[in-house]
Formats: sequence, C-alpha cells, structure tokens
Amino acid sequence: DFMAALNEVKPAYGVETDELENRLTYGLISYGPKFDHLRESIRLFIQQVRTSERTPLLSVLLEGGSGAGKTALASKAAIESEFPFVKLLSPENMVGYSELSKCNILNKAFDDASKSPLSVIVLDNIERLMEYVNIGPRFSNLVLQTILVLVKKNPPKGKKLLIIGTTSSASVLDQMEITSAFNVTLNVPTLGPEEIRSVLTELNAFENGDIDRVVNALANTELGIKKLLLVTEMARQEGAKYISYKRFLECLHDSGI
Amino acid sequence: DFMAALNEVKPAYGVETDELENRLTYGLISYGPKFDHLRESIRLFIQQVRTSERTPLLSVLLEGGSGAGKTALASKAAIESEFPFVKLLSPENMVGYSELSKCNILNKAFDDASKSPLSVIVLDNIERLMEYVNIGPRFSNLVLQTILVLVKKNPPKGKKLLIIGTTSSASVLDQMEITSAFNVTLNVPTLGPEEIRSVLTELNAFENGDIDRVVNALANTELGIKKLLLVTEMARQEGAKYISYKRFLECLHDSGI
Amino acid sequence: DFMAALNEVKPAYGVETDELENRLTYGLISYGPKFDHLRESIRLFIQQVRTSERTPLLSVLLEGGSGAGKTALASKAAIESEFPFVKLLSPENMVGYSELSKCNILNKAFDDASKSPLSVIVLDNIERLMEYVNIGPRFSNLVLQTILVLVKKNPPKGKKLLIIGTTSSASVLDQMEITSAFNVTLNVPTLGPEEIRSVLTELNAFENGDIDRVVNALANTELGIKKLLLVTEMARQEGAKYISYKRFLECLHDSGI
Amino acid sequence: DFMAALNEVKPAYGVETDELENRLTYGLISYGPKFDHLRESIRLFIQQVRTSERTPLLSVLLEGGSGAGKTALASKAAIESEFPFVKLLSPENMVGYSELSKCNILNKAFDDASKSPLSVIVLDNIERLMEYVNIGPRFSNLVLQTILVLVKKNPPKGKKLLIIGTTSSASVLDQMEITSAFNVTLNVPTLGPEEIRSVLTELNAFENGDIDRVVNALANTELGIKKLLLVTEMARQEGAKYISYKRFLECLHDSGI
Amino acid sequence: DFMAALNEVKPAYGVETDELENRLTYGLISYGPKFDHLRESIRLFIQQVRTSERTPLLSVLLEGGSGAGKTALASKAAIESEFPFVKLLSPENMVGYSELSKCNILNKAFDDASKSPLSVIVLDNIERLMEYVNIGPRFSNLVLQTILVLVKKNPPKGKKLLIIGTTSSASVLDQMEITSAFNVTLNVPTLGPEEIRSVLTELNAFENGDIDRVVNALANTELGIKKLLLVTEMARQEGAKYISYKRFLECLHDSGI
Amino acid sequence: DFMAALNEVKPAYGVETDELENRLTYGLISYGPKFDHLRESIRLFIQQVRTSERTPLLSVLLEGGSGAGKTALASKAAIESEFPFVKLLSPENMVGYSELSKCNILNKAFDDASKSPLSVIVLDNIERLMEYVNIGPRFSNLVLQTILVLVKKNPPKGKKLLIIGTTSSASVLDQMEITSAFNVTLNVPTLGPEEIRSVLTELNAFENGDIDRVVNALANTELGIKKLLLVTEMARQEGAKYISYKRFLECLHDSGI
Ligand SMILES: Nc1ncnc2c1ncn2[C@@H]1O[C@H](COP(=O)(O)OP(=O)(O)OP(=O)(O)O)[C@@H](O)[C@H]1O
Ligand SMILES: Nc1ncnc2c1ncn2[C@@H]1O[C@H](COP(=O)(O)OP(=O)(O)OP(=O)(O)O)[C@@H](O)[C@H]1O
Ligand SMILES: Nc1ncnc2c1ncn2[C@@H]1O[C@H](COP(=O)(O)OP(=O)(O)OP(=O)(O)O)[C@@H](O)[C@H]1O
Ligand SMILES: Nc1ncnc2c1ncn2[C@@H]1O[C@H](COP(=O)(O)OP(=O)(O)OP(=O)(O)O)[C@@H](O)[C@H]1O
Ligand SMILES: Nc1ncnc2c1ncn2[C@@H]1O[C@H](COP(=O)(O)OP(=O)(O)OP(=O)(O)O)[C@@H](O)[C@H]1O
Ligand SMILES: Nc1ncnc2c1ncn2[C@@H]1O[C@H](COP(=O)(O)OP(=O)(O)OP(=O)(O)O)[C@@H](O)[C@H]1O
Ligand SMILES: [Mg+2]
Ligand SMILES: [Mg+2]
Ligand SMILES: [Mg+2]
Ligand SMILES: [Mg+2]
Ligand SMILES: [Mg+2]
Ligand SMILES: [Mg+2]
Repeated sequence: DFMAALNEVKPAYGVETDELENRLTYGLISYGPKFDHLRESIRLFIQQVRTSERTPLLSVLLEGGSGAGKTALASKAAIESEFPFVKLLSPENMVGYSELSKCNILNKAFDDASKSPLSVIVLDNIERLMEYVNIGPRFSNLVLQTILVLVKKNPPKGKKLLIIGTTSSASVLDQMEITSAFNVTLNVPTLGPEEIRSVLTELNAFENGDIDRVVNALANTELGIKKLLLVTEMARQEGAKYISYKRFLECLHDSGI
Repeated sequence: DFMAALNEVKPAYGVETDELENRLTYGLISYGPKFDHLRESIRLFIQQVRTSERTPLLSVLLEGGSGAGKTALASKAAIESEFPFVKLLSPENMVGYSELSKCNILNKAFDDASKSPLSVIVLDNIERLMEYVNIGPRFSNLVLQTILVLVKKNPPKGKKLLIIGTTSSASVLDQMEITSAFNVTLNVPTLGPEEIRSVLTELNAFENGDIDRVVNALANTELGIKKLLLVTEMARQEGAKYISYKRFLECLHDSGI
Repeated sequence: DFMAALNEVKPAYGVETDELENRLTYGLISYGPKFDHLRESIRLFIQQVRTSERTPLLSVLLEGGSGAGKTALASKAAIESEFPFVKLLSPENMVGYSELSKCNILNKAFDDASKSPLSVIVLDNIERLMEYVNIGPRFSNLVLQTILVLVKKNPPKGKKLLIIGTTSSASVLDQMEITSAFNVTLNVPTLGPEEIRSVLTELNAFENGDIDRVVNALANTELGIKKLLLVTEMARQEGAKYISYKRFLECLHDSGI
Repeated sequence: DFMAALNEVKPAYGVETDELENRLTYGLISYGPKFDHLRESIRLFIQQVRTSERTPLLSVLLEGGSGAGKTALASKAAIESEFPFVKLLSPENMVGYSELSKCNILNKAFDDASKSPLSVIVLDNIERLMEYVNIGPRFSNLVLQTILVLVKKNPPKGKKLLIIGTTSSASVLDQMEITSAFNVTLNVPTLGPEEIRSVLTELNAFENGDIDRVVNALANTELGIKKLLLVTEMARQEGAKYISYKRFLECLHDSGI
Repeated sequence: DFMAALNEVKPAYGVETDELENRLTYGLISYGPKFDHLRESIRLFIQQVRTSERTPLLSVLLEGGSGAGKTALASKAAIESEFPFVKLLSPENMVGYSELSKCNILNKAFDDASKSPLSVIVLDNIERLMEYVNIGPRFSNLVLQTILVLVKKNPPKGKKLLIIGTTSSASVLDQMEITSAFNVTLNVPTLGPEEIRSVLTELNAFENGDIDRVVNALANTELGIKKLLLVTEMARQEGAKYISYKRFLECLHDSGI
Repeated sequence: DFMAALNEVKPAYGVETDELENRLTYGLISYGPKFDHLRESIRLFIQQVRTSERTPLLSVLLEGGSGAGKTALASKAAIESEFPFVKLLSPENMVGYSELSKCNILNKAFDDASKSPLSVIVLDNIERLMEYVNIGPRFSNLVLQTILVLVKKNPPKGKKLLIIGTTSSASVLDQMEITSAFNVTLNVPTLGPEEIRSVLTELNAFENGDIDRVVNALANTELGIKKLLLVTEMARQEGAKYISYKRFLECLHDSGI
C-alpha cells in the first residue's frame, strides 16, 4: 500500500535531508506577513500534489534578490513535505562538471522521482545551473533545454511530482521562457523597514535607540535577510555587548551597500 | 494485400498509442465551433492521405499559444487515423541527447515510416526539438536542417505519409522557413470569453454567478485551455464544493496572468 | 572507342535514373512560352558540352521561388542528356550527415565524373546542401567552399562535365559568390494568370467559369506549379466531379496564400 | 583538540608559505593611513573567521589599479593568519592549462580547505584566472561559474574559510556578478602625493629637493607602488648616489606614464 | 656545383608542369600593352631572384577581377622560370581538406622549396585557400596565419624563393594584411574596348562589322578574358560560320552581364 | 661560482645565435640619433638586469611600423647581451602549430630561462604569435593569456630575466593590456628624410643628385628601413652602376607606396 511504498523509498534518499538542512544555517526568522503568506502558499501546493487526482505535476518558481532566502525556503519546504523522494539539485554539487554531466544528473533525478509515488525536486539557482553570465550573454543551452523539457514533463500515470525552482535572475529566466514553463511564480521579497526592525529585534544585537537609526539609514536600500544577518555578525567583532551604530554602517559599506 | 500489410506492421508500433494517450490527461473538451472546425480539417487531411493517389505526402503544422492544446490535438489525430505506423517524436524522449542523436532518431522514424503503406508522424514542439532559445538566438542547425529536408521528402512510390507538427513559436519557424516547408498551417486558438464559459460550465466547479465574473475578469487575457484547467484545480484545493471567485483570481495571478 | 566507353560506364550508374524520375511525380506540364524557352536553353547547353572541343566544363544554375519546378526541370534534363555518367546530389540523401561526409560525397561524385567522357551532375537545393539558415546567418562553410571550388574545377583533358544547380535562395548564393561561380543562371518562373489558366485547363478539375474566378483571385500572388497542383488535389477531397471555387480558396488559405 | 588538529594539518601545506613570500620582494612599505586602515580591516576579518561561531565563510575582494599592491597584501594576510591551511591560487601556476584543469585545481583547493578547521584561500588576479580579455569580450565561462559557486559555498559544519580575492578589473567582475558574490570589497589605492613622498623618503634615493620636484611632477597621475619602486630602480642604473630628477622622468616616460 | 644541384632536384618535381599547363587551356592571347608590361615585370622578378645576392625572397601578388587571367599568368611564369623547384598550391587540390591539412601542405611545400637553390611557389586563389566568405565574414584563421608567416619567412642562407600569389579579393587581403606581407602587388586588368577588339579579332568568330557592335555594347562592363572566351564559344553553338550579334548578347546576359 | 654557471649553461643553447643572426641579413645601418638612442636604452636595460639586485625581471616592448627593424634590433641585443640563456620565440618556428603547442613552447622557454642565472627571451611579432587578425577580431586567447602571465612572472629567487617583445600592432596590444604588462615600451621609428638620405648614401646606389630627388619624393611617406633596402635592390636589376630615379619610383609603386 501507499505507506509501505513510502517507507520503502525513504531510506535510499534520506541523505538529502542533511544537504537540505545545511542550507538553513540561520533557520527561518519570521519577518512579518509577507513571509507567512509565502510559507502558506507553498504549504498549499504541497497539499495539492499530495491529494489532487488531477495534478500529477506542479512546478513553483521562487524568485527574488540575492540573499532573499530563496534556497532556505525551498529547502525547508522539501523537508516539511515528508515526501518519500526529495532531491536538491544545486550548482554547488556540480562544480566544474560538463554541460552533459549536469544534464545527466538532472535527468537521473527526474527519472528517480518518476519511480516514487510522491516527489519533491528543488532546482536551486537555475541561472547558475545553466552557467549564465550576462556578458554575451552566455549560458549552457544544453542545460537550459533540459530544464525547459523536464519542468513540463508529466510523471508516469499515478506518480506525482512537485518542482521548486529558485532564481535571482527572474528577467533572464523570463526571456528564456523558463518562467512560463513553471506553473506558478512566487516573489521572495527583500526586507522593508518594519521587516528589518523585526529581524534586528529578534537578534537582540542593538540598543533600542540604535535599531531606529539603523532602520532609518536603510530606508531606501534593497537588503536581503542573508546580508543583514552577516553584516550584524561582522559588526559584532569589536567585542562590546551591543553593536555600535557607526561600526554597523561601516560594515554595510564594505559589503557594498 | 493491403490489410495484411497493415496487420504485419501494427504490432511493432503499438506501444506508441500509450505515449499518445499519455498526452491526453484531460481528454478533449469541445469549447465551441473553432475547435470543431479544427477537428474536421484534420480529419479531411487524414482521409486525403488515405485515399488520394496523388498525395504521397501531406504535412500539417498546428501552431498556437502555450498550452492551447496542440499536442493533445495532434496525439488524438494520430490515434484516430488508425494508420499502421504511428510515431510521436517529442523532446521529452530526447532529454540531453546530442544534436546528432536527435537527427538519427528523426531520420530513423521517417525511414521506418517509409516501409509502411500509411504512416503518421507527430513532430511535437518543433522549437524544443531544435533546442531554440531567443537569446542569441541559438538552436541546433543540424536538427533544423534535418526537419527542413524530412518534411519535404516524398516517401517511396506507393507509400503515404502524414506529418503533424506542433509549435508555439510560429514566428520563429517562419523565419527558419519551416512553416513554408509544411503544406498546411492551422492555428490552435487560445480561449475567448464564450469558450471559457463553455469549459467552466463543463467542469462544474463554480456557482453560476461566479462563472460570469470569471469570464468578465478574463475578458482581455490570452488563456490556453491547459492553464484554465490547472488553475481551476489549484483553486479547488480549499475543499469547498465550489471554488471561490477570489481564490481563483489569486491562483491565476500566481500562474502569471 | 567513344561508344564503347559510354557503354562501359553506363551500367554502374543506371540506378540514378530512378532517383531522377522520382522527382517527376507530376511530369512536366507545359504552361507556356517561358517554359518552352527554358527547356530549349538547357537543351543547347547539353549539346555544347557534347560537341564543343573548347568546353570541358559548363555550369548552369536554375533559380526560382519555392516549388517553381527547378528540381523537376534539372532531373528531366539529366535524364534526357543520355550522358553516360549522371548523378543527382540532393540533401534528401544526406540527412544528418556531417559537413565532412557531405563534402566527401560531393568530391567523390566529381571524381567519378572525371572518369567519364560525358557527365551531368545535378546539385539540387544548394542552400540546403550548405545547411543555410538566415538566422545568424549560419551555414556550412566547408560545404560552401567545396561547391565554390568544384563548380569551377576543369575535368581532366578530354573529359566533359555539365553541372546543373538549383536554388530558391538566389540572393544568398549571390552573396556567397556561388552565382558568379556558375557560368550561366536561368530563372524558373512562378506562374502568371495565363500560365495558371493553362495548367488548370490541363488538369480538368474545374467547371469552365470557375477557372476564370480562380485566375482572377490569384492575380497578384506568387504561386509555383508545385503548390498549384497540391492545392487542387486537396480541394478535390470533397468527392464531387469538379472542385468548388470556395473550397479551393479555403485550401489555398490553409496553404499559406 | 583544536591545536592538535592545527599541527596535524600544517606540515602538509607548509610549502605555500614560500610561494606567498615570493610575492613580497619589496616587503610592505607603509605609505600612510589608508594603508594602515586596509591592514586593520583585513586583520579583523581574519579574527572574525577564527572566532565567530556564525561565520563559516567570509570572502573579501581586494580591488585596485595595476601594481597597487593587491597580491602583496593578500599574501601577507594569508601568512599572518597562521591558519593551518593556506593556499595561493594564481594564474602563474596555471599557464597554458585548459579551462577544465583550472577548475579542477580550484575545486581541489576548496575541497582540501574543507578538511581543515581554519583555512585561507587567495584567489589571485581573478580576471586572469578567467582568461579575460576585453576584446569580444572573451573569458572562460567554466572558470567564472566555478568561482561564482565556490566563493559562496559554505564549508561543512564546523569548518571555517576565509577567501581573499584580488583583481585590477573591478568593473568587469561587477558585470559578471563576482563582486556581489564576495561579502566584502576593499579598495587598494594608487598613491597620492603625500604617499609618494613617504615611499621615496623611505627609499632614500633622491636628494631632498628632488623629492618635491618628483612629487609635483606626479601630481595628477595614477601610480601604483610597484611601478614607483621599479622606476626608481631603473633610474638608479646611472651609478651616482642619488638619482637625477631628469633621468627619473625619462624612465617614467618609457614606463608609459 | 649549382647545375648538378639543379638536376638533382628537378626530376622529383617535374610533375608540377602538367598541373600548371592544365591552367592554360586557351593559352595566353596578347590583348595589348598592359598585358605585355605585366609579363615583363614578372620576367624581371624572376631574374632578380635568380641573380641578386641580396634577394633571398621575393613575393608578388597578382590581383584582379574574376576570370582576368591571374592563374594563367602565374602558371606561365612558373613554367618559364625553369627553376628546379616549382609548386602550384591550389584549392582545387585541397577540396574538403581540414584547415590543418591545408596548413601542412603549405608548410611542406615551403619546406621542400627551402632545399632547392631556386624555387617558385604559386599560391593560387588565396581567398579560397583561406575558405573566405564575406558572410560573417568567415575564413580559416589557421590558414591565414600560416600564409602571413610563410610569405615573409626567409629561406635558409644561400637558397632563393619566388612566391606568386593570386586573388580576386584584393580588398579582403588588404584588411588581413596579406597584401602588405607581399613585397609587390600587380593588377591584372579586365578588358577595355580596344583589348576586347584585339581578342575577338584574334578569335575570328565575327563578321567585321559585328565586332564593332559587340565592342560598343560592352563599353561599360567589367569583362575578364575568361568569360569573353566562354561566351564566344556558347554563342557558336548555333552552327553558322560567324556568330550572330544577337545570339552573342543573349549568351552574355545568361552569363550575368 | 657565477662564471662557472655561465659556462655550464652556454653550450646547450649556443644554437640560438644562428637563428638570431639569420634575422640580420642586412646588418644594422645607423641612420642617425634616434637609432643611437634606441641602442643605448637597450644597452642600459641589459646592464640593469645583469647588475641590479632588485630587478629580477625586466620587460621591454619594441613597437613600430612594418619593416622598421624591430626584429633585427631585438636579435642584435640578445646576441650582444652575452647572457648564458638566449632564446628567440618567433612565429616562423611555429607555423601551423596548435594554440596549445605554442603555449607549451612559450612556457618551456620561460621554464628553461628560470634555470639560468641570466636570460634573454625575445618574443618576436607578438600579434602573429597570438594569430591576430583584425577581422572579427580573432586571435588565440590561450596564447594571449599565456603571454600576459609569463611577461609578469618573476623568475625564482636569484635568477634574472630580460624579455624583449616586438610588435607592429601596438594599438592592438594596448587593448589587450599586453603593453601595460611590459615594464617599458620603446618606439622603433620609420625613416624621416634625413634618415633616408643617410641610408642611401651608405648604400652608394644613386648618383648624388638623385638622392635628393628620392628624398624629396619620399617626404610624406611612412617608410621602414626594410622596404627601403628591398626597393633599392629591385631597382638595381636593370644592370647600370647607379639606379635610375624613374625605375626606383616604379619599384616603390609596385611595393605599395
Ligand atoms: N525568513 C527567512 N527566510 C529565508 N531565510 C532566512 C530567514 N530567516 C533567516 N534566514 C537565513 O537567511 C539565509 C538565507 O540565505 P539563502 O541562501 O537561502 O538566500 P538565497 O536567496 O538563496 O541567496 P542567493 O541569492 O545567494 O542564492 C539562510 O542562512 C537562512 O537560514
Ligand atoms: N479542446 C481541447 N483541446 C486541446 N486540449 C484539451 C482540450 N480539452 C482539454 N484539453 C486538455 O488540455 C491539455 C492541453 O495541453 P497540451 O499539452 O496539449 O497543450 P500544448 O498546446 O501542446 O501546450 P505546450 O504549448 O505547452 O506544448 C491536455 O491535457 C488536454 O487533455
Ligand atoms: N512545367 C513544369 N515544370 C516543373 N515542374 C512541373 C511542371 N509541370 C508539373 N510539374 C511538377 O511540379 C513539381 C515541381 O516540383 P519541384 O520539386 O521540381 O519544385 P522545386 O522548384 O524544386 O521546389 P523546391 O523549391 O521545394 O525545391 C513536380 O512534381 C513536377 O512533376
Ligand atoms: N604598502 C605596500 N603595499 C603593497 N605592496 C607593497 C607595499 N610596499 C611595497 N610593496 C611592494 O610592491 C609590490 C606590489 O606588487 P603586487 O604584485 O602586490 O601588486 P598588484 O596590485 O598585485 O599588481 P598587479 O595589478 O600587477 O597584480 C610588491 O613587490 C610589494 O613587495
Ligand atoms: N592574355 C591572357 N591572360 C590570361 N589568360 C588568358 C589570356 N589569354 C587567354 N587566356 C585564357 O584565359 C583563361 C584565364 O583564366 P584564369 O583561370 O587564369 O583566370 P583567373 O583570373 O585565374 O580566374 P579566377 O578569378 O576564376 O581565378 C585561361 O583559360 C587562359 O588560357
Ligand atoms: N638600423 C637598422 N635597424 C634595423 N634594421 C636594420 C637597420 N639597418 C639595416 N637593417 C636591416 O633591415 C631589416 C629590418 O627588418 P626586420 O625584419 O628587423 O624589421 P621588422 O620591423 O621586424 O619587420 P616586420 O614588421 O616585418 O616584423 C633587417 O634585414 C636588418 O638587417
Ligand atoms: Mg540560493
Ligand atoms: Mg505541446
Ligand atoms: Mg527542388
Ligand atoms: Mg597581483
Ligand atoms: Mg584563378
Ligand atoms: Mg619583425
């Protein structure tokens, strides 16, 4: 029966969970309603794949600025799905591979998924998987075509598949018609003033008045949660209990903001 | 004699029928006169190949927006022809293949067809077969040239062949002179208001008043039947008997409309 | 002596005649003075190669719109020459071949010809032999260079060679200096009103009054003889003795006119 | 324990120190506050990697004009870190290597680093590692993609890594999104008038009055410390105790200033 | 001694004479002073190489329109030099060869020449040797570089070499700096009215009055001697003793003039 | 000791001297102060490498018009240095080599040099080494990158290296940042009127009055010493003791001036 099948498949792929958890060094800090809505949407898609007879395939693209938390969100969703087959396809595991090797890995993963009743595949950092660079522009058309086809290819009868892609180059993926190959696109936002305040409060690294000053100083910048966490850590190196406002701005500047 | 020949060839290719039926997950819902006319035209072409002495070769290109139902239509026609040789050539079965392998597969299929008295070959998603991307633009010229030649190559004396191509990039195929290599081009339309109403009524997923609201909201969008069916399914996930109008629009939005 | 040599060579290449006749499914229907003049010019060139001491090599390019009848004309000329060596070099026999293989086939054919006292080589569809596409544009420079050299290369002393090329991309061949590498260029015309009338009368498919209406409707289109014949056949499928005018226009429209 | 681990790893990589010291032929001459601030920033980053629990990875890009002293600074930092794994990745050790070999070397170094509790990797002259030339422009996309991924790839749990990159083509690296892949970017300045005075005074090669004249003559040029040291040496060849002002300017001119 | 050396080398390369004579099907018809001056210049260069101590290498480029007689002139010069080593390097002998094979053939020929006291090498149709096409433009850079170097490479001490190149794409060769790599460039002219008259008179194919009419009709065209000879031959096919003026113009027109 | 080391290395590389002398067919004719200054500058650089402790590496680029005498100057300098390791890297010895073979040869030469206490490497005709052509432009990026790195790579401690490059495409090398990779750039001039007079007087080929006329006629041309010497030789072929002014101008014209 179904549960038996689940158990049968699970052990073979259990390793993936480590890989996925490795992308969650800072966990997920809730920064407000936008984040909560995102999480709920993803939860519904997982449920649709699990339960709807008429949804053999669902593909969701998470797009957003650099460091917005896309990989962390996708990884968390994959873990929480508790599907028997879970696979993270990331450029970090394909460094220096030929285009063909990459395609084979992608193809193999989708093939493996087609043997499990329920599967999640995370296609992390799609522009990097395709070796995209905007000079030229250049990219691996072999990988691109592979993705374009695999993302739309129904699993065999009775099997179900959820694909979660991530990208910080949505406009490039638009042009390549990858975006339209996905059924759904969700934006992972950079942080607004109130969201920055939530995170910094949670981190407890500033004196209260200083949080206001930081939030004001960052009023018009595009800041992802990843950089906010790193800069706070850098500023901490001076040893005092609370971070000085001036040191924080210096670190921000060195970080290119 | 002829029927004997038919029977002789049939078993070897019977598998294709499964592949073709796999493209018809939602069946064909008649959405109105345009659809019926399309079906009739295709039926006539099948008949011409079967009966006309002077038509050894006929090639028909189905072009239309993404998800308009081109592959489903072509697959259904191939099944209904009941020709002894029926072959679906689809990028989904050539993921990661080299240009040369693809050409060999195409060439082999046409060669096989040339041994059957009556054949249908479906060239599905021609732009993808050619690995086309509009950045550059780039594509496999080897596959393109192969298609340009095969689509115009007469079968040997006494054999007959119907070619059905599909594409959602008609303007690209025009430029490459593929369109003009086909004898006939038929447009597979996206859905207009009355057509959307027909489909939604058939699906019985909305309360009557809501169908009107949905149809109005979609008045000026280009919507293919495939997306309409998926979005309806997504909206259904909330569990109520009928889909709420608001939820439906939300799902549409996530789907990029 | 000469006749002995002829007989010696002939058997080995007799097969080519089948290939050539295969290009003449509809035979040659005389559509008027332009066609007759074309035939006469080609006849004179064959005679010059056969008889002139000072013409070891003559090359003739037939250029004209798609379906104008270039291949049929070249094939007929090759058959009627009755030269001992006759060879059709066509992209249809080189599907999926590498550039190098194509060059080797071309080179081999010219080499074989150089052993026969009198030879005709048909270079059919030169733009396709070169794998030309106007996006880029891209083409096989290896094949192009091979053609540029072979078309101007004298056969050895005492041997004679007629080359007949065909193309529907004369302007491309101009740019590549292929046109100027040929000694002579002849235009194969699309059909004017009177010529269409001649063909349709010959086919006996319309009631008399309808021929006038068809000719008028086609007054300003570029129509090759091949498409005219196919569309007539398509329109015939309705079973009546004569084709209805309306059905004919419909078929024309599906055929892209 | 930790110190034991350090000692265990150290011997295997001791050779690198020679390579690094080889980049410091002229040592580091302090030319003023900008230089001191640079040194202090780098020192803090080393400390952060050594001590912060939440900083498994830190990447610093040193960018500045040709000969500004980037390689010398990075080499000195790597030596002073006293981390058990220290690796200099420089184009000088990869002359004529294929793109793939370079990627393998990079990948191997990061892999080796991932086995050491604390590591420094210097990516020297990144534009040269990528074989960049601004005609085209051309570069190795394979190396670029490798760098883009490796620079952001966390070491395994419990390991820590400091990456120091150098480049004199910051704007190119910006375009390729390498700059934004680094956590921090620091500018290594060319020398202003007071800084030139400091260096020349330290070198004791001019009579006092002449230093003023040199500083004035160089008021509006972009001059790196490397060229200043070489030109001084060239001018010295005439044998007198102090360099003549005129000879110095001549040498500057031959050096392209 | 010298004559012994000559005799020693001669036999091995005697074959080339046939190849060269093969390029002179129509011989050389003197069409006036321009032609005589050309012949004299070439004669002087041959003499300079034979006698001057200080001229180990001399390179002459013959450039002119298509069919102007460049190959015929170069071949005649090579034969008349009576140098012990004479080599014709022509694209006709390298059809379908790889770039590398071509380079090896060129290199081998120059190497062989370097063993003979006196050598002539004809580089025929340089743009074709380089596989040049003006779409792109594309060409073999390997062959180009090989030619650029070989044309300027001194033979070893005591050996002497005359290089005669031909091209009908002088402006292309200018751009590639091939022209400037040659020591001398001579123009081979197309025919002016008086020159056409000389040739036609010599051929004795027209009645006297008709020659005037032909010369007038050709007043403003660029016509090479090769085409003039061919068209005359084509026009002769009608069988009369003299060519009719009208037929001649028709043939000219088919020949693209 | 040092002298012993010198002697040890010398024999192995003595052959290079022949290669270098081969580039000096006409010797070096002093044409005035510019030439003398050039020679002196190069002499000083040789001395700096030999004696300065702080100059392990010095790189000098000789740039100037075609035939200005760059290769001759570089070769002479290499011979006169009397360094134990002397190597000429010239495209003439790499005809038809692959990019990789060229890189290996370059790399090997620098590696060999790194074993000698004092070395000179001549990189002759750098644009040709890189297979540069300004159509495209195209060039070997592999060779370019190799040169960019090798020219800046310090020899090991205690070894010293002088690099002399030559080019007649300085602006191309600028763009590729090769010029700035060299420490010093010296211009090798074409000849002005007084310099032409010096050379012609030295050659003693004209009657006195004619030299004035030649110098006047050449007032506004860019003429390198190599062409001046060749044209004089060509003009001499008429056999008289002195060259006629008219014949000289004719030869100049054929030589493209
Ligand atoms: N609410 C949150 N959403 C996402 N990530 C969070 C959140 N709170 C904390 N994080 C942490 O922030 C980091 C987000 O980095 P992540 O690599 O997921 O970003 P990314 O958008 O994938 O970046 P990149 O554009 O570089 O791929 C992770 O370390 C994660 O643990
Ligand atoms: N009238 C109809 N015509 C076509 N398809 C229909 C129709 N009614 C329902 N369908 C269903 O709609 C879907 C159409 O999807 P299909 O893959 O054929 O579209 P497509 O145009 O080929 O899309 P793509 O552009 O992605 O290739 C199929 O699942 C099919 O079963
Ligand atoms: N007068 C005619 N001239 C040429 N072809 C004719 C004539 N009459 C009938 N035909 C028929 O018309 C068809 C012409 O097609 P053909 O393939 O020769 O055209 P084409 O110009 O080579 O086309 P394409 O541009 O596709 O290569 C042939 O089937 C031939 O039998
Ligand atoms: N304060 C200083 N900072 C850096 N280098 C110094 C300093 N003082 C002296 N030097 C010397 O100056 C030279 C700097 O050269 P280095 O190769 O580091 O420059 P670079 O910026 O890496 O040059 P390139 O752009 O060519 O890579 C070294 O020899 C170094 O010993
Ligand atoms: N005075 C002449 N000069 C040159 N060729 C002549 C002359 N008189 C007659 N001929 C004949 O004219 C023909 C010239 O053709 P040739 O192939 O040499 O021209 P080409 O300039 O090399 O042509 P292409 O541009 O095609 O290479 C030869 O057959 C030659 O025998
Ligand atoms: N003063 C001089 N300087 C340089 N070369 C001289 C001088 N006097 C005579 N020569 C002779 O002039 C010739 C110069 O040719 P060389 O090949 O060195 O020029 P180049 O600038 O390298 O040419 P290219 O641009 O073709 O590489 C040599 O034969 C050399 O012997
Ligand atoms: Mg990510
Ligand atoms: Mg489809
Ligand atoms: Mg044809
Ligand atoms: Mg550096
Ligand atoms: Mg020629
Ligand atoms: Mg030189």
